[in-house]
Amino acid sequence: MSYAQQMLQTAPGKSPFDSSALAACITACVDCAQACTACADACLGEGDPKMLVRCIRLDLDCAAICQTTGAVLTRQTAFDPAMARAALTACRDACKQCGDECETHGRHGMEHCRICAEACRRCEQACAQLLTAA
Amino acid sequence: MSYAQQMLQTAPGKSPFDSSALAACITACVDCAQACTACADACLGEGDPKMLVRCIRLDLDCAAICQTTGAVLTRQTAFDPAMARAALTACRDACKQCGDECETHGRHGMEHCRICAEACRRCEQACAQLLTAA
Amino acid sequence: MSYAQQMLQTAPGKSPFDSSALAACITACVDCAQACTACADACLGEGDPKMLVRCIRLDLDCAAICQTTGAVLTRQTAFDPAMARAALTACRDACKQCGDECETHGRHGMEHCRICAEACRRCEQACAQLLTAA
Amino acid sequence: MSYAQQMLQTAPGKSPFDSSALAACITACVDCAQACTACADACLGEGDPKMLVRCIRLDLDCAAICQTTGAVLTRQTAFDPAMARAALTACRDACKQCGDECETHGRHGMEHCRICAEACRRCEQACAQLLTAA
Repeated sequence: MSYAQQMLQTAPGKSPFDSSALAACITACVDCAQACTACADACLGEGDPKMLVRCIRLDLDCAAICQTTGAVLTRQTAFDPAMARAALTACRDACKQCGDECETHGRHGMEHCRICAEACRRCEQACAQLLTAA
Repeated sequence: MSYAQQMLQTAPGKSPFDSSALAACITACVDCAQACTACADACLGEGDPKMLVRCIRLDLDCAAICQTTGAVLTRQTAFDPAMARAALTACRDACKQCGDECETHGRHGMEHCRICAEACRRCEQACAQLLTAA
Repeated sequence: MSYAQQMLQTAPGKSPFDSSALAACITACVDCAQACTACADACLGEGDPKMLVRCIRLDLDCAAICQTTGAVLTRQTAFDPAMARAALTACRDACKQCGDECETHGRHGMEHCRICAEACRRCEQACAQLLTAA
Repeated sequence: MSYAQQMLQTAPGKSPFDSSALAACITACVDCAQACTACADACLGEGDPKMLVRCIRLDLDCAAICQTTGAVLTRQTAFDPAMARAALTACRDACKQCGDECETHGRHGMEHCRICAEACRRCEQACAQLLTAA
């Protein structure tokens, strides 16, 4: 069982989200933040980083937004629907932008971009799903 | 001149934002992140933190969202309007929620909440203003 | 395979760390950041948060330090030993402080503190281990 | 008066630091985090980012460490000397590494690096000064 799940089970407060969908979304946010941080760095280390400037930039933005959203969702005490929606909407949109960019480079052989695009898609979908319940 | 202004002037890339409105918004985000971090801590240190649980929670959320938005706006290279809008919208909404909560406690004598509410209002307005141009 | 491992395998740059020890440390940092964020929130939601003020404070500090260290270690391009040591040392020490505090509350029935202490110990050890190689 | 100063004056808890030295260090951390974020982005937008890969990497590390240290120092409740020392030591060392790198590029005409080096030096010194009192 992940730390996200264990911590949700022992939290005294409860947000209105289904707890397994919530744990999945927190994990997707944390994973995507890590993947985007790594992808920005890997792009920077490629032979011609100039070609990947837009990808690096979107990776850095998406990493920060996913990290923040993971923290907002982690908090179960005094849950605030408007705050959750604000974070989830930004995160869904950021993952869409970054996932689109990474997917393009992934199709041209950049493996770190392909894997990062996958993390972005998973997070985009998890945020979209929670938003229907927020 | 603030570091935000100096760095904008020396950046090779330029976002479409008016540079003085942009510098003001970056500063408002950074200030609000710091004020919310301090307010969460000050609420926690009060005689009865139980009364301020919702304020602490919203402060922590708002601090993270403002911090992230300040970083997204700071990046001038390969500016992406959809990413900027996603961050600005979340930040405006987070500052509204947190500012409303802090204002209430500020009216009841909590000086750190009163000052934090001011930082939230300033940031909410700066984000709303940039959004009209994003 | 975790995203941390997949991203390390596809990175063009390589830090001098053993890659499985590195992936384990990145995961320990990210998990500990999430657990500490959740523990701070759970403590705040308890019946008497006043008793847990020190735990909340250390959780917030430790979450931020672990998050930052996970990002520093994730970067494989232009690896800098002094920067890695600075982050790892702070993270090992922060996890020691926070783990000690959480362990105490864990022994008195706070399950979220017990689980968080475990995440802190794992991260403390992973950082200490990498430091012998940094 | 800065928000950092106003918030320190209204905080119920007090760390053992001299309050004007503390406010100066918090501001130096926050400014340096912003300058390093901007410098990483400006380097990425230059004609040949390949020459600036090490600078970008150190900027990203330093930005995160300064941001975290600013937050740790902002918290006055249940002050913990070991946690403060861990953060301050990492921040001083990170600013040294990043400042050295930026200074070199600053001497070769990169204005954003020159300004960022100045922010790093200021933060390095502010952390070193507080460490003598931590």
